[in-house]
Amino acid sequence: MIHNTTIDHQLDHRSIRKFKPTTLSQEQLQTLYSVFQHTATSMFMQNATLLHITDEAKRAKIRELCNQKYVGAEGDLFIFVVDLYRNQQIRKQLGQDDGRVHTTDIFFQAMEDTLLAVQNVANAVESMGLGYVPLGTVNDHPLKMLEVLDLPELTFPVLGMQVGIPDQEPQLKPRLPLEFTCFEDEYPRDFKVENLKDYDEVVTTYYDLRDANRRIDSFTKQITGAKLNLHETDRDQISEELHRQGLCLDWHTN
Amino acid sequence: MIHNTTIDHQLDHRSIRKFKPTTLSQEQLQTLYSVFQHTATSMFMQNATLLHITDEAKRAKIRELCNQKYVGAEGDLFIFVVDLYRNQQIRKQLGQDDGRVHTTDIFFQAMEDTLLAVQNVANAVESMGLGYVPLGTVNDHPLKMLEVLDLPELTFPVLGMQVGIPDQEPQLKPRLPLEFTCFEDEYPRDFKVENLKDYDEVVTTYYDLRDANRRIDSFTKQITGAKLNLHETDRDQISEELHRQGLCLDWHTN
Repeated sequence: MIHNTTIDHQLDHRSIRKFKPTTLSQEQLQTLYSVFQHTATSMFMQNATLLHITDEAKRAKIRELCNQKYVGAEGDLFIFVVDLYRNQQIRKQLGQDDGRVHTTDIFFQAMEDTLLAVQNVANAVESMGLGYVPLGTVNDHPLKMLEVLDLPELTFPVLGMQVGIPDQEPQLKPRLPLEFTCFEDEYPRDFKVENLKDYDEVVTTYYDLRDANRRIDSFTKQITGAKLNLHETDRDQISEELHRQGLCLDWHTN
Repeated sequence: MIHNTTIDHQLDHRSIRKFKPTTLSQEQLQTLYSVFQHTATSMFMQNATLLHITDEAKRAKIRELCNQKYVGAEGDLFIFVVDLYRNQQIRKQLGQDDGRVHTTDIFFQAMEDTLLAVQNVANAVESMGLGYVPLGTVNDHPLKMLEVLDLPELTFPVLGMQVGIPDQEPQLKPRLPLEFTCFEDEYPRDFKVENLKDYDEVVTTYYDLRDANRRIDSFTKQITGAKLNLHETDRDQISEELHRQGLCLDWHTN
């Protein structure tokens, strides 16, 4: 294994859900913005926008929708936004039609821009000795979240991130062994669940030892359990949200 | 601005499209796999898979579909795959139905897992003194690419990456100033294209000075030009590809 400070942080990644009661300095914030800005971007379209949420009332509303007490609490709250509004405005104000901005293709390229920027900022955060947790819960109630964030058409808040000085030291969570996730040339269709037996035991032991939470599900129990079972959830509004925002459409139906 | 080796690499990012005729050592490869493995993952579902393409015939076919001479040429070629096949197999082999694996919601969480892993690997690559270029062109001909990669249902190759020792020193490409992309609390709807005048000049100068390419389009000219104009392209097969793969469906229509 090759070691350097970047890689050592990456291999030591754990989500932080408890932060000290401080906020980022202006210098830290500007550095994260610059890292965001320098992320690779598809076709040089620069389709990502970063919102930094400091308003207490807004933080409280977002926390309520995310239903996680650490969201918008100690530390800094960011929302990473897929943004085709800016490029639509450029086209419109220069006398062009919307072109391909509504297409699934361009939306996916914007998703790429935005999610690469999330991880780039995450790595910068950890390089400064800070911690973070990605917030997928910003899409737990998509239509309400759009209202709270007051976002224009052609935007989509894909992930949030809470950042700060860690006030906990969680255990490293054991990941699927590489034999199940990294392949040379051929994707092996002959996956056999019994080969996960050892990994299941490792995961169960991890939960047994963890202080914060009494859940003791193995990996396969989690995958066969509630989170992937069919159930009603507002998260199924994501398609409706995207179409309402004018995103992810087939161009010939514009 | 805060400086450390991670951040300095991030602020100095440029895509590399010309590599020396070497490939990664086993140690480098295993390190990149480990970084891939330790990326944050939504709901601990671990929905990403990494393909390392070394077979020359396969590399040639991918290069042809991507229509970029550096794809699968010098250096190493990776394909980052959204993967819900593995978790479907776990459920199936343990006697469960597919549950929510076909939903748009779960597909988006898998996109997040996979694209975060792309940038995590990218940062590890640059920390080793290597370079990379993300390959969005793996979706230029989605249906043909699925055949070449021989991928099962519930998978989607979202991005490729060519990695190696840089054999060029491209200029740093000027990005949109932060006032257009990073906002506090409120998304400003009052974007005015005339405020991009200075940035347009910076971009034009960049192209004027660049050796490799004679294109001298400003940013707004690019956005109002061919790449976002309506046109026929196989990239509009992405929706069809996803649905054929059993991904990104509404659960009640499963």
